[in-house]
Amino acid sequence: MTDRENGLTHFDEAGRPVMVDVSNKPETARVAVAEALVRMRAETRQRIEAEAIAKGDVRAVSELAGIMAAKRTSELIPLCHPLPLSSVHVQTEWVDDAPPGPAFADSRLRIVATVKTTYRTGVEMEALTACSIAALTVYDMCKAVDRNMSIESVRLIHKSGGKSGTFDA
Amino acid sequence: MTDRENGLTHFDEAGRPVMVDVSNKPETARVAVAEALVRMRAETRQRIEAEAIAKGDVRAVSELAGIMAAKRTSELIPLCHPLPLSSVHVQTEWVDDAPPGPAFADSRLRIVATVKTTYRTGVEMEALTACSIAALTVYDMCKAVDRNMSIESVRLIHKSGGKSGTFDA
Amino acid sequence: MTDRENGLTHFDEAGRPVMVDVSNKPETARVAVAEALVRMRAETRQRIEAEAIAKGDVRAVSELAGIMAAKRTSELIPLCHPLPLSSVHVQTEWVDDAPPGPAFADSRLRIVATVKTTYRTGVEMEALTACSIAALTVYDMCKAVDRNMSIESVRLIHKSGGKSGTFDA
Amino acid sequence: MTDRENGLTHFDEAGRPVMVDVSNKPETARVAVAEALVRMRAETRQRIEAEAIAKGDVRAVSELAGIMAAKRTSELIPLCHPLPLSSVHVQTEWVDDAPPGPAFADSRLRIVATVKTTYRTGVEMEALTACSIAALTVYDMCKAVDRNMSIESVRLIHKSGGKSGTFDA
Amino acid sequence: MTDRENGLTHFDEAGRPVMVDVSNKPETARVAVAEALVRMRAETRQRIEAEAIAKGDVRAVSELAGIMAAKRTSELIPLCHPLPLSSVHVQTEWVDDAPPGPAFADSRLRIVATVKTTYRTGVEMEALTACSIAALTVYDMCKAVDRNMSIESVRLIHKSGGKSGTFDA
Amino acid sequence: MTDRENGLTHFDEAGRPVMVDVSNKPETARVAVAEALVRMRAETRQRIEAEAIAKGDVRAVSELAGIMAAKRTSELIPLCHPLPLSSVHVQTEWVDDAPPGPAFADSRLRIVATVKTTYRTGVEMEALTACSIAALTVYDMCKAVDRNMSIESVRLIHKSGGKSGTFDA
Repeated sequence: MTDRENGLTHFDEAGRPVMVDVSNKPETARVAVAEALVRMRAETRQRIEAEAIAKGDVRAVSELAGIMAAKRTSELIPLCHPLPLSSVHVQTEWVDDAPPGPAFADSRLRIVATVKTTYRTGVEMEALTACSIAALTVYDMCKAVDRNMSIESVRLIHKSGGKSGTFDA
Repeated sequence: MTDRENGLTHFDEAGRPVMVDVSNKPETARVAVAEALVRMRAETRQRIEAEAIAKGDVRAVSELAGIMAAKRTSELIPLCHPLPLSSVHVQTEWVDDAPPGPAFADSRLRIVATVKTTYRTGVEMEALTACSIAALTVYDMCKAVDRNMSIESVRLIHKSGGKSGTFDA
Repeated sequence: MTDRENGLTHFDEAGRPVMVDVSNKPETARVAVAEALVRMRAETRQRIEAEAIAKGDVRAVSELAGIMAAKRTSELIPLCHPLPLSSVHVQTEWVDDAPPGPAFADSRLRIVATVKTTYRTGVEMEALTACSIAALTVYDMCKAVDRNMSIESVRLIHKSGGKSGTFDA
Repeated sequence: MTDRENGLTHFDEAGRPVMVDVSNKPETARVAVAEALVRMRAETRQRIEAEAIAKGDVRAVSELAGIMAAKRTSELIPLCHPLPLSSVHVQTEWVDDAPPGPAFADSRLRIVATVKTTYRTGVEMEALTACSIAALTVYDMCKAVDRNMSIESVRLIHKSGGKSGTFDA
Repeated sequence: MTDRENGLTHFDEAGRPVMVDVSNKPETARVAVAEALVRMRAETRQRIEAEAIAKGDVRAVSELAGIMAAKRTSELIPLCHPLPLSSVHVQTEWVDDAPPGPAFADSRLRIVATVKTTYRTGVEMEALTACSIAALTVYDMCKAVDRNMSIESVRLIHKSGGKSGTFDA
Repeated sequence: MTDRENGLTHFDEAGRPVMVDVSNKPETARVAVAEALVRMRAETRQRIEAEAIAKGDVRAVSELAGIMAAKRTSELIPLCHPLPLSSVHVQTEWVDDAPPGPAFADSRLRIVATVKTTYRTGVEMEALTACSIAALTVYDMCKAVDRNMSIESVRLIHKSGGKSGTFDA
């Protein structure tokens, strides 16, 4: 996405929103990786882990929701290009240094989404959307036991491919 | 959403995901308010403000994207109920105590979504989805100038209506 | 839809777009009827009629497309409420006074959509969307033979129900 | 889109609807431009202009709705191909020769959509859909003050690229 | 759905498709249960079971896909009413009398979907759609090892509520 | 779709669902053909045939629904790739050996969907989804007269193109 001088690329000179023209950009292999953190009570984590062993699996449902959301990014983000996706991978992992402790101490679930395409524009938004919807799905499935969960630090951690080159957070 | 004893409500006894049965719950007026914060460089804020004056308006586009996303929540969050919405309102505001300073200092845009329904279940997920997609839209429109933006603290700040009563963060 | 004094209802006081709050409006039976006219060469009409007799039916496909589009109105029109629909009916008819004459004389196909709901807000936009998409479908199916077709006079012709009462064009 | 002899291309020999086979067509750069006119009372125009200065902007919302609708064309028009889009641009402008006069005189807002792709088939339907939905969005946002607005003359004004060559209305 | 004399209810007198008018039908509690059978090689069943123990779970993914598809039934089935859903439950179970035997003997996975609403029309199509998409998801996830799987006997097994009363297959 | 040794390709080593990476696969022309059979009472067939002559056409509506559903396959099947489609064709035909006989004897409508793409992965799921939704549409339109219809034998009957070569059932 070329940067108009001193401005944002998603507006034309009159300030109208545009889906920027990528027709002159080559199709190249592109990857984007994003992450989100879901903060919750340690007790909530314990329930998620207990469910996963016994029966239902919050993490599996949220990973799947993230994959499916990636495919619909261009419907949600107004100026995103619709594009084919080569692969989507969403993984969740607990990131607390310490093992889950007493109730009310915070636990955090990390969601990492990796999206690939071979196209004229990148897939950063697809990776970020996958993370966000996966995180919201965790919230939805646990909200009856922990309404104070929050999603923090949704961000791009890597992108490569395309003219603007490689980015690492 | 009643809380199954010691467990999460979105699984049946065999651990299968379920969209929980709300058919015996009365239709009541419900409200949910959620927020998200988008952190960015002060310079990025300056560009957003400059565009809004001259021409395009990142905040207006993101508010609209949030409203439209609220309507599609049940397509995105696997176990959410499809439901009618009475109103959706998304507003953005700068939350820095200090006025925008030198480049590279952080600025933060606060997004608040308020959703109402008269139905058998609440609209927390609709409010959270509206915030998240609005925040991602800000990212999308500014990523050419600031790839290090991040979304932080997506969370529910209020809900009322329904059997579980009022919640304030 | 109550009319804010001297202004448009889809913005709040700060000019932000809103899906207006209908939670205090009663659920009442509502009907809306809209129409669109597709203008085409008489020769194009002749082909449509010939196909319908022999084989495929442009009008039937467009009527179905209109019905399906009515159901998706709230996804397309940013500030429309998602709502249940009680019925959708789309009909097409030739409206020329004279029978189809020599090629290049204009023929017109009239599309009328009738939509009903029992809800807190009306279905004008659903009826208009049904007409518009049905008309575009006619265009799509005939564009190989007549690129100069145009859609004219998409308009509401009747609405009833709700506080603002009955309207007839 | 090759023209079957004496017939419409969207049906097979038995009259069944088909999404026509484009697999042997080369990927070429294609552009389509369409327009729609929204006719309204001069007073309605004055309100739109007043809102845009003070606060909300009907035209900006409708331009965005048009862009988003272009991306969903293949979901709406039954026999349209799903395809990637290189760019979408929607602009609105007042087309009255005279400045807005007394109430009840007609004003017209012109919507022009330009869509590009590099693919095996054209984007006429995407441009027409963008115009139509943008026009309906204007209607939706102003209907509380002017139910007699109408959309007139939705039509293709230019296309280029592909075997059938350039078309100008 | 009342039965027009000697005919199908989804057409008007002129043969045009209609979404039938339910505005005069009362909102009543309704349930529909449907099933689908996926036939596969016993070896394929063994792989599904081995994955479920070790790692991924085909059945859980397909159950979730079925729930999500139920919510989109009215977008897929042209004349279905969009309606709120009170609950959706999809369960899978192996239905072979004998335990999985030698490769190439058939195994069958039974998918049962139960859908509830309180509305003016029934949810048979939602239950059938949930079963069908869940079954297709099983196919998708196993097709690399068994392209000869087939879906058989998608059918309604129960419905209750509404004027037409209770049905059991 | 390469087959991971001894396992299913839609999970990673930790059992998480993945949309498999096709970025290294060449774009090749691919075709898939699937079929579904809808079993119904002979009397139901007679009504369908009578409607088609007089007025409405169940088969035409279901063929169109199948085409439209093929385009949405990747939204419905969680791990399917979104991809462009070159053509979709759905045809229905009566498959009974004998002409329709006395009421209550079974009749069967065969639905065959043919889908083509030039892409990195195949279109089996698109063909199967088209058949399934077309079959459900027949059910929907006839259920008021025959709730005992069933869909049987949804299966892939041909695929070609791609590394795994040609398959015929």
